[in-house]
Amino acid sequence: MSFRAIEWIDEISALRLIDQKALPGTVRHLNFATPAEVAGAIEDMTVRGAPAIGVAAAFGMVTAARSGQDLAAADAVLRASRPTAVNLFWALDRMKRVWDRAATGADLPARLFAEAKAIEAEDIEVNRAISRHAMTVVPEGAVTFYHHCNTGSLATVDLGTALGIIRTAHESGRKTFAYLDETRPRLQGAKLSSFELMQYGVPHAIVVDGASAHVMRTRKVDMVVVGCDRVAANGDTANKIGTFNLALAAAHNNVPFYVAAPTATIDMATPTGDDIEIEERAAEEITQIGGTRVAPEGGPVFNPAFDVTPAQLITGIITELGIVRPSYREGLVSLFAKRGN
Amino acid sequence: MSFRAIEWIDEISALRLIDQKALPGTVRHLNFATPAEVAGAIEDMTVRGAPAIGVAAAFGMVTAARSGQDLAAADAVLRASRPTAVNLFWALDRMKRVWDRAATGADLPARLFAEAKAIEAEDIEVNRAISRHAMTVVPEGAVTFYHHCNTGSLATVDLGTALGIIRTAHESGRKTFAYLDETRPRLQGAKLSSFELMQYGVPHAIVVDGASAHVMRTRKVDMVVVGCDRVAANGDTANKIGTFNLALAAAHNNVPFYVAAPTATIDMATPTGDDIEIEERAAEEITQIGGTRVAPEGGPVFNPAFDVTPAQLITGIITELGIVRPSYREGLVSLFAKRGN
Repeated sequence: MSFRAIEWIDEISALRLIDQKALPGTVRHLNFATPAEVAGAIEDMTVRGAPAIGVAAAFGMVTAARSGQDLAAADAVLRASRPTAVNLFWALDRMKRVWDRAATGADLPARLFAEAKAIEAEDIEVNRAISRHAMTVVPEGAVTFYHHCNTGSLATVDLGTALGIIRTAHESGRKTFAYLDETRPRLQGAKLSSFELMQYGVPHAIVVDGASAHVMRTRKVDMVVVGCDRVAANGDTANKIGTFNLALAAAHNNVPFYVAAPTATIDMATPTGDDIEIEERAAEEITQIGGTRVAPEGGPVFNPAFDVTPAQLITGIITELGIVRPSYREGLVSLFAKRGN
Repeated sequence: MSFRAIEWIDEISALRLIDQKALPGTVRHLNFATPAEVAGAIEDMTVRGAPAIGVAAAFGMVTAARSGQDLAAADAVLRASRPTAVNLFWALDRMKRVWDRAATGADLPARLFAEAKAIEAEDIEVNRAISRHAMTVVPEGAVTFYHHCNTGSLATVDLGTALGIIRTAHESGRKTFAYLDETRPRLQGAKLSSFELMQYGVPHAIVVDGASAHVMRTRKVDMVVVGCDRVAANGDTANKIGTFNLALAAAHNNVPFYVAAPTATIDMATPTGDDIEIEERAAEEITQIGGTRVAPEGGPVFNPAFDVTPAQLITGIITELGIVRPSYREGLVSLFAKRGN
């Protein structure tokens, strides 16, 4: 069983998204037909996951081109939707190389559409390649993973990055189990990753984010796999808040910690994690859960959406071109040199 | 402003508790007049916090004695209410020394009542002494704390252990700020500690449990203070799930990590943390928040209520008799030798 969280519906020139805010209770599709609508869907996390928001932004540019809107303005509104994930900027840069070059060509909408479709198709292939490389470090036989947030089909065009590795291990016949951080504040682990693994029949357990050091100390865990929103040139990795804590739990318990990273998520222009802007989100994400208020009226909150895991806590970065190991500064340069860009 | 979460109402021979499940939205008092009722209140966490449940259990024995119930049966039902916090067993052992000795004396109810009142009064004095000792390691001037769960007036008879230290720092004129882990799954940090600090006027911010390593890396944090449910003879400390992760975040960021521990919480009969039974609680604590389901139907869960922080991550254990530092095995023995028991 598979499903698409993000799909271009050409007849109506609109992006159709599964509303991830309504999962797991309700599977609802919504259409987004303008750059502002797509930017809104990224901002309010109807669509989330670094690869998925890159693809969504690319199709947002297609909606602009087809309706004759100003492309620079569309580009700006999409860029402003979320600051941390670099795929958003990477995809918009790819689109911009098309519209910058051919700014007034009659075939511009078609060329932008082709580029968005290419980004979409590449994401699927990239994820498959990441899983393929990962299988070289996933134990044969039985394997227990630890995972944070959601990095599956819902976060990408298909398969996913870290959760794709877990699914691939299961489908390759390994006896697979996964601990899923519920991932406060938005609970993507409990709501989305558990939902996905139930579809695929992968045995798992949802745990609170604070449980990882205890679980790794008292139960067998073979490896942590997480996604990322931006990898700096030195290997420092921005990902959903709680990832750094999980990496410390893994390091203390000698559990290998792997980051699954499409090369589109690696930003050689960002020297270190300190140079990554960390988005802060609304207090209500913490103080309200569903209809329930879980903090006193006026209770003050600090809500950073991401953290930066220092490179020295990362065992390997699994890309579609292979696995990079420390030292990352040199490893990432050779990775891109190998591909020739 | 102060308040009592636990109070004996002699006219009705009942324990009056603030229903902590209803906070912070509703401040509601409930009465508990039998050992089974008190055990139920401990089990469902109407009353929680290691010191408070010790006092509650002691008064549970008073309800048994006054109504002529079998004391051994009452003792057994209270002992079965929660397995991890040692104060429960410590308080029941103190009560038992009274009813074992004077099993059939006519004045037994009065003597048990006196013992329960002594345990209650000592808890207040113990907490004050812990805060007094703590002030010797809390920076003068400005101080920023990190705190987990709830360890304040709601977790004790009055003042509290770790949260009592934060309050005392504030009331001693230090410019005090506290980051409060929301503390999933039951959110005692968001619901109870924020509620308390708002009463006392202590500036603070609620954060998700996964944020601690990031906050300590990017903002100034002077010290972590946490409570405990049981300290083993080697200094390993059982406390609310998430404490071990917080200790790893502190160690990585060179932030001192202190445990506030009444000596009643130190169990020299437990050699190490591996010997502490860790309570597992219902899946619904994770899958349901208020009226909202946050995981798929049938989504599997692992919900340990506590974890064990290894002694080597603890900077000091602050007791009413003074601060113990590594090596704890020797330090704790001398502490008890000093007191003479």
